Amino acid sequence: MGFEYLTNVPLRKARADYLKLLEDHGFAPQTEVIPVYEACGRVTAHAVYAHICAPHYAASAMDGAAVRAKDTFGATETTPITLAKNQYMVLDTGDPIPDNCDAVIMVEDIVKNGDGSITIHAAAAPWQHIRQIGEDICAGEMILPSHMTVSPSALGAMIAGGVLEVEVIRKPKVGIIPTGDEIIPPCTDPKPGDILEFNGSIFSAMVRQWGAEAMVYPIVPDQFDQIRDMVAKAADECDLVILNAGSSAGREDYSVKVIRELGQVLYHGIAMKPGKPAILGCKGNTPILGVPGYPVSGIIVIEELLKPLIDHWLKAPAAPRQYAKAALTRPVVSGLKYEEFVRVRMGYVGDKLMASPLSRGSGVVSSFMKADGILEVPQGLEGYEAGSEVNVRLLSRADKLENTLVVIGSHDPLLDELGNMLHVENNGVYMSSSHVGSMGGIMAIRRGEAHAAGCHLLDTADGSYNTAFIRKYFPRGGVKLIRCVGRQQGLMVARGNPLGIEKFSDIARDGLRYVNRQKGSGTRILTDYLCRQNGLDTAAIYGYDREELTHTSVAAQIISGSADAGMGIYSAAKLYDLDFIPICIEEYDLIIPDHAWDTPMVQQLLATLKSGAFREKLLAMGGYTVENPGEIIEV
Amino acid sequence: MGFEYLTNVPLRKARADYLKLLEDHGFAPQTEVIPVYEACGRVTAHAVYAHICAPHYAASAMDGAAVRAKDTFGATETTPITLAKNQYMVLDTGDPIPDNCDAVIMVEDIVKNGDGSITIHAAAAPWQHIRQIGEDICAGEMILPSHMTVSPSALGAMIAGGVLEVEVIRKPKVGIIPTGDEIIPPCTDPKPGDILEFNGSIFSAMVRQWGAEAMVYPIVPDQFDQIRDMVAKAADECDLVILNAGSSAGREDYSVKVIRELGQVLYHGIAMKPGKPAILGCKGNTPILGVPGYPVSGIIVIEELLKPLIDHWLKAPAAPRQYAKAALTRPVVSGLKYEEFVRVRMGYVGDKLMASPLSRGSGVVSSFMKADGILEVPQGLEGYEAGSEVNVRLLSRADKLENTLVVIGSHDPLLDELGNMLHVENNGVYMSSSHVGSMGGIMAIRRGEAHAAGCHLLDTADGSYNTAFIRKYFPRGGVKLIRCVGRQQGLMVARGNPLGIEKFSDIARDGLRYVNRQKGSGTRILTDYLCRQNGLDTAAIYGYDREELTHTSVAAQIISGSADAGMGIYSAAKLYDLDFIPICIEEYDLIIPDHAWDTPMVQQLLATLKSGAFREKLLAMGGYTVENPGEIIEV
Repeated sequence: MGFEYLTNVPLRKARADYLKLLEDHGFAPQTEVIPVYEACGRVTAHAVYAHICAPHYAASAMDGAAVRAKDTFGATETTPITLAKNQYMVLDTGDPIPDNCDAVIMVEDIVKNGDGSITIHAAAAPWQHIRQIGEDICAGEMILPSHMTVSPSALGAMIAGGVLEVEVIRKPKVGIIPTGDEIIPPCTDPKPGDILEFNGSIFSAMVRQWGAEAMVYPIVPDQFDQIRDMVAKAADECDLVILNAGSSAGREDYSVKVIRELGQVLYHGIAMKPGKPAILGCKGNTPILGVPGYPVSGIIVIEELLKPLIDHWLKAPAAPRQYAKAALTRPVVSGLKYEEFVRVRMGYVGDKLMASPLSRGSGVVSSFMKADGILEVPQGLEGYEAGSEVNVRLLSRADKLENTLVVIGSHDPLLDELGNMLHVENNGVYMSSSHVGSMGGIMAIRRGEAHAAGCHLLDTADGSYNTAFIRKYFPRGGVKLIRCVGRQQGLMVARGNPLGIEKFSDIARDGLRYVNRQKGSGTRILTDYLCRQNGLDTAAIYGYDREELTHTSVAAQIISGSADAGMGIYSAAKLYDLDFIPICIEEYDLIIPDHAWDTPMVQQLLATLKSGAFREKLLAMGGYTVENPGEIIEV
Repeated sequence: MGFEYLTNVPLRKARADYLKLLEDHGFAPQTEVIPVYEACGRVTAHAVYAHICAPHYAASAMDGAAVRAKDTFGATETTPITLAKNQYMVLDTGDPIPDNCDAVIMVEDIVKNGDGSITIHAAAAPWQHIRQIGEDICAGEMILPSHMTVSPSALGAMIAGGVLEVEVIRKPKVGIIPTGDEIIPPCTDPKPGDILEFNGSIFSAMVRQWGAEAMVYPIVPDQFDQIRDMVAKAADECDLVILNAGSSAGREDYSVKVIRELGQVLYHGIAMKPGKPAILGCKGNTPILGVPGYPVSGIIVIEELLKPLIDHWLKAPAAPRQYAKAALTRPVVSGLKYEEFVRVRMGYVGDKLMASPLSRGSGVVSSFMKADGILEVPQGLEGYEAGSEVNVRLLSRADKLENTLVVIGSHDPLLDELGNMLHVENNGVYMSSSHVGSMGGIMAIRRGEAHAAGCHLLDTADGSYNTAFIRKYFPRGGVKLIRCVGRQQGLMVARGNPLGIEKFSDIARDGLRYVNRQKGSGTRILTDYLCRQNGLDTAAIYGYDREELTHTSVAAQIISGSADAGMGIYSAAKLYDLDFIPICIEEYDLIIPDHAWDTPMVQQLLATLKSGAFREKLLAMGGYTVENPGEIIEV
């Protein structure tokens, strides 16, 4: 037991050494000849030269008449010249100029006579109003240099130049091999222990975005020979191979041995996190990249180590990474030994761009989906303090960051619905909501990190909600409290309530497994209060320290059978069809800082909050009372 | 004859009114359900909710042993606890936690005993090292809101959440109808008057880049009934229709009549240039856009009037247009009545971003290919003076503009080859070369608008090249003169020299049609000098005022038979297999300003200039002598 990685190579060195090794082995792009119609977005293999001129004949640039210029010399307003029928030819724009003519007179400048002759009042200069041959492109001219991405107009220029086929760099083919006994094709009813194979879909989508082709091979069980044979096959059929091994040490060991038997392992173990177990190897001139099984690790490894190879193959310089300075909302602690990639959510609050670190679990693929940026913490740095200005690599477009309403605070599924409606009604406006509990939301507003915070804090002195906390934490004002909903809190229990739970104090029963919310959340504060009120010793409640961050995740633990009861809102219980023992109705409101009040986003949010559609949605979700949402509550 | 457009509507108003009309007629996106694997880059039609939790079972987060936490309470370094065989279960990372267990102890913290029991030296906290159900995604949670573009990781999150199909906005289908008697499918040997149909390919590539599907219909001749039937068919089969009419007034008239018969014409004539003849119409809820036949007009009309409809359909906000401030190198004159779109080449010279207007001909598709930006001159403005700071919409990426070597001056095909080699050898470095003649190049260098200028200026006093001009135009220095090539100048004449031209003075022969280069070009200065030397009256030379901008375009006029002779370099004559009467060898050098000398791009250029590969290329092109290219010439 225990496994040593061979190396802890800095990422930059690993990348450079890998490319060097591959080039030495002959890793280089191949080309193919394709119809020019299909060439948009592809990269030219060689310079492209015109075969014919465009225009390929001298053409009239106007509607009018072709003439011999010398026949018109001397014509003026006072000394017009008349040209006989055989001295001119009527032309439309684009018509070829007759051989014996060398000028065009515009239709507006011609007087037609009854006998078929025309009269003109100005001389024509030779070659006037004629599109000369090759005005656009001359035969033999270079239309496009080598290694250029073909644009729609370049495609047109090639066709105009008589180029109907073009040699382009072939899209590199990336073979992706999922391995692992526990991996199964995606389905909706996996058994415990089954892991759905979705890395292949993620990696395929990524490499396609970068201009490569992807081919996902069938799932290979954890058998050395089978893995070896599949890798050998993929290396034959593809230009690059991703070997997606499980993340436990034993699996990587298979990968290393397989790659070593087929070719060569350059490094096993890169000084990066996530992604340390990556394996850089090759079979002949085909790179074989051993990628850890956790999706986030895999995504980072592929971005950092496979994309440079695809870019190198394609010859067209990739778009440079975009960075922006942002203020960190929470500290980031990093290991000295690794370069670390921390996913962050971002948004502008006032003029300040904020970056909030997301879950760092390698298995949490949704964190990548939510991420607006990646904070790259260099090797040798222990991290950053909260409030630090950091340079974040952007994944989202600047216009999205500028139009994202940042909501930090208490969780309620209604926020997702509200954000969805806001986005649908105001195309280009987004909501990002982070669940840190009601107190976390108040702190975020105080630090100027959010446009709004969901909040349901009980003042145990008088049973009121939120107002006392606003007075305490914003003694000088600066925020508005906005009515949102009343919502039913209660105990979620398994369907049919098999343990016969009737009242709050039943959570202290022997043998009952409780699942709690995190400290600082409104629901936790309510639960703690109810425990005191009921004289319950929280230390004696099994699972009281087991904390989940949302109502839905509490419900998920109960439906799965790993807990028997947990406090939460009715809509979460209904979502999972759990039984629900109502305890109380609480006020869930929004805190909005004055500086954000007049922004279009906040006003759009209020409009959505007040809309009939939102009320209908809440009633359909159940467990909510809706009275004058959007009104300002006197504090 | 003569044709009045119906309207001259400002572009912004036309765009808004058109969208309003179409929405009133029911123009709205349709949706389709697709496998989630194919969803990357597509836009969600509705919010997507998870069907299952991810992870969907409580899983070990470590390699180790699953235990009941309460069995371990009290274990410390000094009071270890031993767990019997049936009190633990060995697990790998990802394995499901057995029902009766609630914690995992890492393999590193376990001592295995010979009898199958294990000893531990620390208590396990309940739920330690366990990935809880729904840690990533909870069933019922919103994974993605409506109208969001699916990213690779979102695709993974959907599969992890048990979502295998997703309803997305269907790609709008754009039908493109080319019309015109003179339009023929692309070929390499068109007859005079034939126009190759390449607009369909350009438009298809454009709309595909915007996320639509394209369908090009067969070319329709200029027959009202046939056009009407094809438009009706396309309107049935597609979501948007482009009717690509010829550009003469008669053709547009057909389009207007056809659209009016089938549906409705909102506007005919938009206050934009190019693109004024555009027709905004519809048949039911299907927009039918009448687009002028000239490719540049068509591209602009489609960008300005069709793309907003596609964006509207797709619901995902398009990337905002990017603008940059740049200095105009030449004046731009614009009509007051129109908003005008002027294509510009761009590049940084020092810290200054320069914008050089390109050919404004609507037929010059290559100008669009070369354009790095579009200068949008508002309606009501007469244009800009040279040197003005203008706001240019960028077509090229910033990193390309920063790495583009700007060469302005005398034309030689060797520049294209040099630029190609520079780009191939230095991925990410580009060359943009503009042909304005030797004197134009000197002026561009003086104004700080170029990194290099090609120059071959004869000092008629002593027969020397370039040095006298450097001394005259750069009296205080500030530039270096770099040896490039010697090149053979002479008279290009038709194959077999049918007119029996022997010497320069033959260009004055009666009946001979000369084609000249533009004033300010080195070749023109040489030609003027040779005329004086030979005592020729230039006013008596037919075609002496017919000016072409490049050696190749002079050659193109001769090969096409529209001219009999023109001065040019041997390599251009060879390209067209023309006969060539040598006149003199001249020095073609490069002027490089000192401020650019130490930039990597210029040093890379010099390296390419000195390379064996470049010498070989020149010898293959013919007509060049190569001696110490890249060396600095004493001035």
